[in-house]
Amino acid sequence: MVDILIRNGIVLTQDRQGRVIQDGAVVIDQSRILDVGPTDQLVSKYQADIVLDASKQAVLPGFVNTHSHLWQSLMKGSADNEPLQDWVFNQLMPILYTSNQRLLKENFEGEYYASLLACIESIRFGTTTILTMDGLNPRICEAFQQIGIRGIHALQMADRWIPEEILQPIEKQVHDAKMIYRRWHNASDGRIKIMLGPCTPYICSKSYLEDIIELARQWNTPIQIHVAEAPYEVELIMKEQGRTPINYLESIGLLDLKTIAVHCIWLSDEEKNILKKYNVAVSHNPESNMKLGSGVMDLPWMLKQGVNVALATDGAASNDNLNMLGAIRAASLLHRVTHKDPTIINSHTLLRMATINGARALGLEKEIGSIERDKRADIILIDLSKPHTRPLGNVENMLVHCSLGSDVETVIIDGKIVMKDRTILTVNEEYVIKEAERIKCEYLEEAKEYKPKIRDSART
Amino acid sequence: MVDILIRNGIVLTQDRQGRVIQDGAVVIDQSRILDVGPTDQLVSKYQADIVLDASKQAVLPGFVNTHSHLWQSLMKGSADNEPLQDWVFNQLMPILYTSNQRLLKENFEGEYYASLLACIESIRFGTTTILTMDGLNPRICEAFQQIGIRGIHALQMADRWIPEEILQPIEKQVHDAKMIYRRWHNASDGRIKIMLGPCTPYICSKSYLEDIIELARQWNTPIQIHVAEAPYEVELIMKEQGRTPINYLESIGLLDLKTIAVHCIWLSDEEKNILKKYNVAVSHNPESNMKLGSGVMDLPWMLKQGVNVALATDGAASNDNLNMLGAIRAASLLHRVTHKDPTIINSHTLLRMATINGARALGLEKEIGSIERDKRADIILIDLSKPHTRPLGNVENMLVHCSLGSDVETVIIDGKIVMKDRTILTVNEEYVIKEAERIKCEYLEEAKEYKPKIRDSART
Repeated sequence: MVDILIRNGIVLTQDRQGRVIQDGAVVIDQSRILDVGPTDQLVSKYQADIVLDASKQAVLPGFVNTHSHLWQSLMKGSADNEPLQDWVFNQLMPILYTSNQRLLKENFEGEYYASLLACIESIRFGTTTILTMDGLNPRICEAFQQIGIRGIHALQMADRWIPEEILQPIEKQVHDAKMIYRRWHNASDGRIKIMLGPCTPYICSKSYLEDIIELARQWNTPIQIHVAEAPYEVELIMKEQGRTPINYLESIGLLDLKTIAVHCIWLSDEEKNILKKYNVAVSHNPESNMKLGSGVMDLPWMLKQGVNVALATDGAASNDNLNMLGAIRAASLLHRVTHKDPTIINSHTLLRMATINGARALGLEKEIGSIERDKRADIILIDLSKPHTRPLGNVENMLVHCSLGSDVETVIIDGKIVMKDRTILTVNEEYVIKEAERIKCEYLEEAKEYKPKIRDSART
Repeated sequence: MVDILIRNGIVLTQDRQGRVIQDGAVVIDQSRILDVGPTDQLVSKYQADIVLDASKQAVLPGFVNTHSHLWQSLMKGSADNEPLQDWVFNQLMPILYTSNQRLLKENFEGEYYASLLACIESIRFGTTTILTMDGLNPRICEAFQQIGIRGIHALQMADRWIPEEILQPIEKQVHDAKMIYRRWHNASDGRIKIMLGPCTPYICSKSYLEDIIELARQWNTPIQIHVAEAPYEVELIMKEQGRTPINYLESIGLLDLKTIAVHCIWLSDEEKNILKKYNVAVSHNPESNMKLGSGVMDLPWMLKQGVNVALATDGAASNDNLNMLGAIRAASLLHRVTHKDPTIINSHTLLRMATINGARALGLEKEIGSIERDKRADIILIDLSKPHTRPLGNVENMLVHCSLGSDVETVIIDGKIVMKDRTILTVNEEYVIKEAERIKCEYLEEAKEYKPKIRDSART
């Protein structure tokens, strides 16, 4: 007797061969995939407690969202057509200030409910693994644990270019980071991970970056860092360090660690070659880059050179959603029009970017990212029976260009059914949303008088 | 006693002042809007047969989709990363051939069911007015009539660059066009309209274009035409006519008529100024332009100069959907990234492009496109209560960047509730889809042996 049998679906395995099984089945026992194959073969071989009929559904490995800031879910819809820095200073900073004030008082509920809300949206849109680069709030992982998502908290660190009243002392940051790591790394049978997230190369001083690198080496965990999202960053680093961002990161040894570089828009050819040399994974956030007018990452070069490019939504304040099908579709459209060439990217590759490439970026490719025997059972069922996906054409193409996030019907994470028929089974959705709404109101109220006072408080 | 009272919604009127009523109501009697205002005022003033509670919903004029090819709904998901012309010749032409063979045998059901399916998708995603540039099939308007959408059939005309075996003789085209015009123009109390759709400036000979202009003058209807979608078109027209496309259309008097120019990507500054001078409306199809790698229309110039830009999905074979919220979002993201400037466009303008600008493009601005007293009651209710739209930020911004087509809950067209709680009330959705699927299979089977033989069969 096995736990779950999914039958009669179109199984897009995302395995090495990119196998698609037209009438396929997946067998799950405990947290892992026990078997994958044609329905007729597996149905006669296994008896299951739960049988999920996936007729007219696509069965995929869950999406891996390689970059987000979950707390921003409180702020969705806040930025429209403001310049990036105005919006950061006028809208995000006040919220960060309030959040920081609360952290100092050991009131951790804000990011907890924001993260739960963000995870609800993520799961509803088919994400089974999410990485959030967020502050040192110990309850973010509690949200992962409770809702049942595979979650990675990349601990956001910074000691410069942040208003002093928001910045925590370095010693406290490192202390809190170690506490969170000890409590949460590999919690829930490995479903929860911790890594380090120095925000950008310029927002940490060189000595702090070196401390962070040393810590990541001790922990043997990857580092995630924003790189070259906007030209001003590149200029600043050139001015301060006399090197391009990637050159700088190479020089201090950061790239010797497993690195996930986010955005990677404004890179020189030399920098791109360094990315390749060090096997740096790139987290591509097309919707955020478009909405903020940041620019276009050179996807064709990356793919041609074999750089591992994964997809992400970025935070819900610059997108403004956590819908990976939206990110996939935006990537498809953006690169075709940028290069005025509809052959520059295909749906098959885009779906791999959102699944197995994401797993590889996070160092989890042996555990997740494809539907293969012995991998963790992170699986989503996407309905293809609605008017907008009929008549069915090429399934990969339709998932990328026709399907909506709301077509995700069922989500299984680590062998547990977390969403069934679009209802999350692990938390009370309405309660979480109401708490998140209450907290947003409180934050806005508490931040009303606050005006950020910017000062470079670098150590070096 | 009035027919319908919508209450407690956030009413985004799209009227001249762009009024948003936070707790608003709309009163509908027969096919028209009788009153709009705050809920508390209107509730005490009117008794209604049907009361729709729009709490936590946005109430908008229905979207106006100014360009599509409805029959392509059979082909959604067929094109992935093929060059445009390969796809046209290998995938679209065979279907057109079969369709033409059937038309010659007076078998009209293909486009009828394809159009019904496309209208189902359109309505489900909030479109209340759709223009389709489609062949001379008399049953397309029958589909509009039956499902209850506001429909415009722009009769597609061509006498060159189409394989001879697909092309109908000009005399037959004009005869059929007149038949369709007589039967359908202003049918269903004006809900259905006919206009002329010479496909592109180069796909009609000059003399045929002149005939079409004369016919449109007699009918007093607008003309819709694709213009400057790709550089090769511009080159071809330059070579044949010694003028740029818009110059050419001006020279033959086409722009003296009310004109809707579709795409308008590869225009010179001179051409853009001519568009402005003649008050030509531009139908902008961002997702199609992106997917096909066509290029980027100069939206900031158009908006700055006061050119009326409306939005559209294009056909479902090059998008691959009929989701206007997708088109709105794509336009937002595309122009911000193209100009590397997040302030280049805002959500308020984007929603107007999808509603009142569309109405104006089609010459229907006195009848539809905004929620105002005496206008036709074409109204949609979009749910804002789901996790991905909470907590609520700026509503316009959230509709553009967070909402999905599937959030459209209720659709009223010409005062009739056509969709309620995501169920279409006027046709049997499953029956229509099954018929469309059957027909797609038949088309593919019948077209199996067909290889298009291209020849320029121009008269001039």
